[in-house]
Order: sequence, then C-alpha cells, then structure tokens
Amino acid sequence: MGQTIKAFVFDAYGTLYDVRSVENAVELAFPGRGRLITHVWRMKQLEYSWLATLMSRYEDFWCLTLRSLEYTLHSLNLSFNEQLLQDIASSYLNLTPFDDARPCLERLAPLTRAILSNGSRSMLSSLAVNSKLDRLFDHIVSVDANRAFKPAPQAYALIEAVLGVGRDEVAFVSSNGFDICGAKSFGFTVVRVARTDTANIAGSLAEMIVDDLFVFNLMRANAEALNYAADLTVGSLADIPDLFEDRGFAG
Amino acid sequence: MGQTIKAFVFDAYGTLYDVRSVENAVELAFPGRGRLITHVWRMKQLEYSWLATLMSRYEDFWCLTLRSLEYTLHSLNLSFNEQLLQDIASSYLNLTPFDDARPCLERLAPLTRAILSNGSRSMLSSLAVNSKLDRLFDHIVSVDANRAFKPAPQAYALIEAVLGVGRDEVAFVSSNGFDICGAKSFGFTVVRVARTDTANIAGSLAEMIVDDLFVFNLMRANAEALNYAADLTVGSLADIPDLFEDRGFAG
Repeated sequence: MGQTIKAFVFDAYGTLYDVRSVENAVELAFPGRGRLITHVWRMKQLEYSWLATLMSRYEDFWCLTLRSLEYTLHSLNLSFNEQLLQDIASSYLNLTPFDDARPCLERLAPLTRAILSNGSRSMLSSLAVNSKLDRLFDHIVSVDANRAFKPAPQAYALIEAVLGVGRDEVAFVSSNGFDICGAKSFGFTVVRVARTDTANIAGSLAEMIVDDLFVFNLMRANAEALNYAADLTVGSLADIPDLFEDRGFAG
Repeated sequence: MGQTIKAFVFDAYGTLYDVRSVENAVELAFPGRGRLITHVWRMKQLEYSWLATLMSRYEDFWCLTLRSLEYTLHSLNLSFNEQLLQDIASSYLNLTPFDDARPCLERLAPLTRAILSNGSRSMLSSLAVNSKLDRLFDHIVSVDANRAFKPAPQAYALIEAVLGVGRDEVAFVSSNGFDICGAKSFGFTVVRVARTDTANIAGSLAEMIVDDLFVFNLMRANAEALNYAADLTVGSLADIPDLFEDRGFAG
C-alpha cells in the first residue's frame, strides 16, 4: 500500500446497496416466504454468475437474476409466470442503499469514485438513478463489457481500461468474500466492509436457531479462507475517508 | 442421442458416494454440530472450487476441502488446529457409496466405466480402494490434470483425452446440478440422478422447518434453471443399465 490511491471503486450489491431489501417485494408475492426466497435467490444468483462464467456461457446479470429466482420458486413448488419473475426481479433496480454509502461517497470527492458490479449496465444505471446516488460516481462499470463475472480477472481489468489508472492506484471496497479475493488477487488494495457482526452468528449458535438467515450469513458474511485477504477491514463505509487520509494514501 | 454410447462416466461426490457420510466424523469432533458443519462445508467446498478456477488460482481439491472446512469452523467460532482439519477432511477418503452404485457398475460391464471427479488423484484413488469399487472402473480421472474444476469445459475434455472416445459417445451421470449443466454444455449425453425427493422439500415447506438441511437441499438437490438440462433423469443408478439397453444405445 505504498502507492497513492487515485480511485475508489465500490462493489454495488451488498456493499453500497442492501440486497436483502428485495425481501419486501418477494414477501408481497409470496406471503410468509419472503425472507427464505430472498436468501436462496441471492445465493443461487451468485452461483449462476460463477457457473455461466466457468462454462463460457455468459448471460447478463439480469438474465441470471431471473433464472435464479425461477430456480428458487420452482424448488419451493411455488407457482409463478414470467411476468411475476420480471416484477419481483425489478426490485433489484430499487435496492436500498446502506446509510453509510452517501456520506462516504461525498467525502471522498474529488477523488475518482466508481462502481464495478456484476449488474448489467441497465440494472446499474437504474439503481444509481433510483437511489439518487448517480451524481456521486465518476464511472459506473458493469462487468458485462468483458462478459465475465467476478472474481474473474477480466472483470477487474475493466477498471484499468475505463478509469485509466493502474491496479496499484485503486482502492477496491467490498463486503463480499469472493469479490475481496478476486480484487486482491488482481492487484487492487482491498477494503473489506464487515456488514454482519459475526458475534451475532455466535449468539445464534449458542441458541441453535439454524434457519435460512443463519445459513445465509454463515455462507456469505465472512472473509474467505483463501489466500487473498483484504488489506483493511472496516465496520462501516464511513470509516474509509479518514482511514485513507490518516495514512496519507489519498487526496 | 442417436450415437452409440461407448463409455459411462460417473461423478463421484454426491453421485456414487454420499458426501453427507462425513457427518459422523464431524459430529465426533463437534458434538451437536455435525450436520450443520457438513452442509456448510460442502457448499463452501464447491464455492471454493469455482472461485479458484475463476481467479485462475487453482489449488487441488484436497487443499480446498481443508480451506472450506477451516472457513466453516472459523465462521462458527469453533476451535481447531491443522491436524484436526486433516483428520476430519480424511473422511472424504472413506465416503459411503450409495447402495445403487455397485450393482449399476457391475451390470454396465463390459462397457467402459470411469469416474470424472473434482477430487485430487490421491483422494479418488483412496476413495475407490477404501470403498472396494476400484476394480469396477476402467479409468479414474481427476480434473487436476487440467487444473480447472467442473463445470469448466477443460475438466470434461479430459474424458476424450484419457478414454479415447468422442464426446458424443459418452453417457455422463451426475446428481449435481452444476455438473449436469457443465457436462451437457460440453456435449455429453447426460443422465441426472435425482437423489433427493423434492416432494420432501414441499412437505417440509408446509411445516416450515427451514433449517440447514432444508437450505442445503434447496440449494443443491434440484436441476438448475439454466439452458443445459439432462437428457434423462433417473431416481436410482440401478435404472441406468436397462434404460440404455432398452434404447439400443449401448452394449
């Protein structure tokens, strides 16, 4: 981390935006099943992004979001049609930003701020506008241009191409374990946002409430046990500007 | 499927062998947590195989089996050391074959019978010998030779190279959704073994016992909603010899 950071690049889903905010839309369509469907859908959505890339059968994230929802509903023996899939999936265009997103982005100006996301260009554009965060980004980059999802290096390589910065000039911010590994392996300086307090997991374990939320957090909330760990971990995006100013890496 | 089938190629983990048979070893080490750890470990093991391949940071399946177990125990705030990881993971060398594996393999002779598995060569060799199924295979092929896990096409391409058959002469048998997609996308004739009765899932849903087993089955037991569906689905490996004899594709 001896290099000056010129650009802050953020993951969108789970980092700037709460993917679990789709639960309300799902619950309206399937009362009593909203949380379960939301958790399985998200895990399957990520799995499909990995499988499609591995098989060299890329489809954009909107398609895979629909297909993973279809898988989830079908597996639960729930009735649906294509229109309902589209209606529910459109909640991904209206995700709730985490409270710390806007203040962090505002304070990082005038440094370059960007999104690098699995989402299709259309999904990301709608999401940024609908959440009124669009003016806080210099670039919104979809992995779609290189037809490979994170953590494939082709996804991260888009940042160098689009922003015109070297990988050693980028601070990449994500809450997703696989994304942290991929970004670190690629050569970015990586900041992990620990969105879910693992002490809560321990608390649940003592009481053994092993439900879909518990399994989801077990699978998705922790740093991976792979070789590519984050350089820094923060509890909130709000900690990031000070952290980088104090260390003299940015500004 | 107009082509004569010359070789039957089986997935190992979940298809010939019950991956959930590691639960006893896990339960001995962590009483009361055996089933939960087994489920999360297996899901993470697959995830790590996909991430390592996507990142072009291949490590063999034994390493990833250890790392995914480490992730699982750490996430549950359980104490362990490297030796315990090795001891528990060695249960993957002693998985229980499903009851239908041996009779199916015996009846398919003299056709070529092979395993194509994510497992390392050493893991697969131990597993076949320990389960006394080793003499029923003409070839045991690890994806390790091409350093890419399923469903990457490089994994399936090993069958053509090692067995000397065309992809249109192979019947590939798997219970794993991602593996079915990968094999079909590659060009094999694919038989899906439906190991978990989805009617059970519906039954559980009515009673809403949403625990780790429920989420595991939801995530892993069903055919994927991607474009590459199996050609045939059977409830047991025992159905396969008759199915292919009746259709005149084999023998």
